[in-house]
Amino acid sequence: MLPVPEDSRFVSPVTVADTVSILVDRMVVVGVGLIGGSFARAVREAGVVKTITGFDSSTEHLLRAQQLGIIDEIATDPATAVRNAQMVFVSVPVCSISGVVKAIAPFLEPGCVVTDGGSVKAPIVEECGQLLPEHCSFVGGHPIAGTENSGPESSFSALFRGKRSVLTPTAGTNQEALRLVAALWEAVGAQVCIMEPHHHDRIFAEISHLPHVVAYALVHAVGHADVEGENVLSYSAGGFRDFTRIASSDPRMWRDIAIMNRDALLVSIDSFTSSLSDLRQYIVSGDGDGLSTFFTVAKEFRDTIE
Amino acid sequence: MLPVPEDSRFVSPVTVADTVSILVDRMVVVGVGLIGGSFARAVREAGVVKTITGFDSSTEHLLRAQQLGIIDEIATDPATAVRNAQMVFVSVPVCSISGVVKAIAPFLEPGCVVTDGGSVKAPIVEECGQLLPEHCSFVGGHPIAGTENSGPESSFSALFRGKRSVLTPTAGTNQEALRLVAALWEAVGAQVCIMEPHHHDRIFAEISHLPHVVAYALVHAVGHADVEGENVLSYSAGGFRDFTRIASSDPRMWRDIAIMNRDALLVSIDSFTSSLSDLRQYIVSGDGDGLSTFFTVAKEFRDTIE
Repeated sequence: MLPVPEDSRFVSPVTVADTVSILVDRMVVVGVGLIGGSFARAVREAGVVKTITGFDSSTEHLLRAQQLGIIDEIATDPATAVRNAQMVFVSVPVCSISGVVKAIAPFLEPGCVVTDGGSVKAPIVEECGQLLPEHCSFVGGHPIAGTENSGPESSFSALFRGKRSVLTPTAGTNQEALRLVAALWEAVGAQVCIMEPHHHDRIFAEISHLPHVVAYALVHAVGHADVEGENVLSYSAGGFRDFTRIASSDPRMWRDIAIMNRDALLVSIDSFTSSLSDLRQYIVSGDGDGLSTFFTVAKEFRDTIE
Repeated sequence: MLPVPEDSRFVSPVTVADTVSILVDRMVVVGVGLIGGSFARAVREAGVVKTITGFDSSTEHLLRAQQLGIIDEIATDPATAVRNAQMVFVSVPVCSISGVVKAIAPFLEPGCVVTDGGSVKAPIVEECGQLLPEHCSFVGGHPIAGTENSGPESSFSALFRGKRSVLTPTAGTNQEALRLVAALWEAVGAQVCIMEPHHHDRIFAEISHLPHVVAYALVHAVGHADVEGENVLSYSAGGFRDFTRIASSDPRMWRDIAIMNRDALLVSIDSFTSSLSDLRQYIVSGDGDGLSTFFTVAKEFRDTIE
C-alpha cells in the first residue's frame, strides 16, 4: 500500500514497476490544451494508455487535437465521453474542474479514477471528492510544468519529463487509484511527490501564483506608463522579456487561480508588498547599506535555485 | 553635423561610414566587468581600436582581463591610465562614475573623449560635464544590453550586437566627440539612439530599474516565506526561474542605480504598487471580470514586445 504521509509534507517518489505495460485501456482527457494535450501525447508515447478520448468546450480545440494525433476520438457530451473509461484527466481552468466532475459523475464506470491538473488543490479535492459516486475515486494532481503558451498546438510530450507532479491525496483517497495516477505520471517522466492539499496551495501561492500576479501587475503598470507620450515597452531588453514572459499566460487560467486560491495568495501578496515597501524606504532615505543587504540577500536566495 | 534633437526624444541612428578603420589609437576601459570587458572585446574584434588599457579598483579583475586578452595593458593609477589616450570608457557602478572622471580629469590629453555605460544618465552627464577640463568632452552613454552575470569572465564581444545604445548629449556636447562615440557603438553592432538625459532616466526607471527592484523584492519575500518550515524555493519551476533571473544581478550595481535614479524610480514603484493594489482588490472581492480584464490588458501589452 502506498502510504499517505502523516506529516502532510513532501515524500519521496512513489515506486512503480519499470516495465512498461498498458495501465489504462481508455482514458478521457477533458480540456485538450497545453497540459491536457501534453499529457495525452506523453502517455501515448510512453505506451501506457490504449485509447484517448478528448472532451472540450471548444470544438475547434477538439478537432485540432484530433488532427494533431493528440486524441483518438472526440466526445461531444459527458455520457459518451466517459463510457468504458478507466480514467479521466481533467485539465481545464480550476474554477471549471468541479463543474466537469459534476457533469460526468452520473455516467462514470465503476472503478473509474478521476484526476486533474489544476494549480489549486484544497477546494478542488474537497468538492470533487464529494461529487463522485462511491464506486469512483478522485485523486488531486498538479504537474509543475508549463509554458506561457496555451491551446492544443502548444502541447508536447516532453513537457513533464524531469518535472515534479504533485498529488494531493487525503485520508479518504483510494490507494489503488493513487497508485495508478502516480504510475502514469512516472511513465511520462515526472517525479511524483505527495502533499497535503492546503500545504500545496500555500507553497504554490508563493512560488507560482504570486509571481504571476506580480508580473501581470508590472506589465500593466509599465504598459500604461506615460513618459512624454513614448511607448516605454519599445525599450524592453532581454531582462524585461524574461521577467514578464509569464504575463503572456492564459488570462482565464490565472483569473480562476486568483479566485480559487484567494486566501493563500493574499497572504503572499501582502508579504511581497511589505518587502517592496521596505525596499522603497531604503531608496527614499538613500540607505546604501540597507539596499546592499536587501539585494544581496535576494541574490543569495535566487542563486540557490539554479 | 550630427543634430541634437530638439524634442529630446528618440532619433534615428547616427550614420557612420561603413568602411572599418582605426577610430581610436589608445582607449582606456575603466571597469573591466561585463560591460567594460565586452566593449573592449567588441571594439578589438571590430578592428576600430589599436590599444586598450584597463584600469579597475580590482587588481584581480585587471589580471584576469589581461589573461583573457580583453585588455593589452594594465594601469595602476589614473595618470598612467589615460596617458596618450584619445578615449576613456567608464563602466563602473553609477555612483562611482563621477569619482573616476574626477580622478582622471587632471591627466587627460587635449581632445580626449570620455564616455560611460551607466544605467542612469542625468546626474552623471551633469557632474561629469563639469568635472572635465575645457579641452576634453563627455558623452553620456548607456548600452541596452547585459546579462545577470558580472566580472571579466562574463564578458563577450557579441553582447551589444543588434542592441540599442543610448547616447545622451546635451546642448553643450561636442559634436565630434558624440560622432566618435556613436561610431564605436555602431562598429560593435549596436543601434545608436539619442535621448535627453532626464527622459532616459524616466524610461529606464520603468522598463529596467522597476523590474529589477520588483524581482529583488519578490525573491526576498518568497525566500523568507515560511510554509510550515519548508523551503518554498525548492518548488520553483521554469517560470519562477525566468521571472527572477534579474535578481541574480550585481547587488552593488543595483544599489547605485536605486540611489542615483531615486526620484524616477519612486514614481515607477508607486505606479506599480497602485496597479498591484487594484489587482489585489479584484482578488479580495472575487471580481472575475475585473481580473480577466486586468490580465488580458497586461497580456496584450506583453505580447507586443516579442
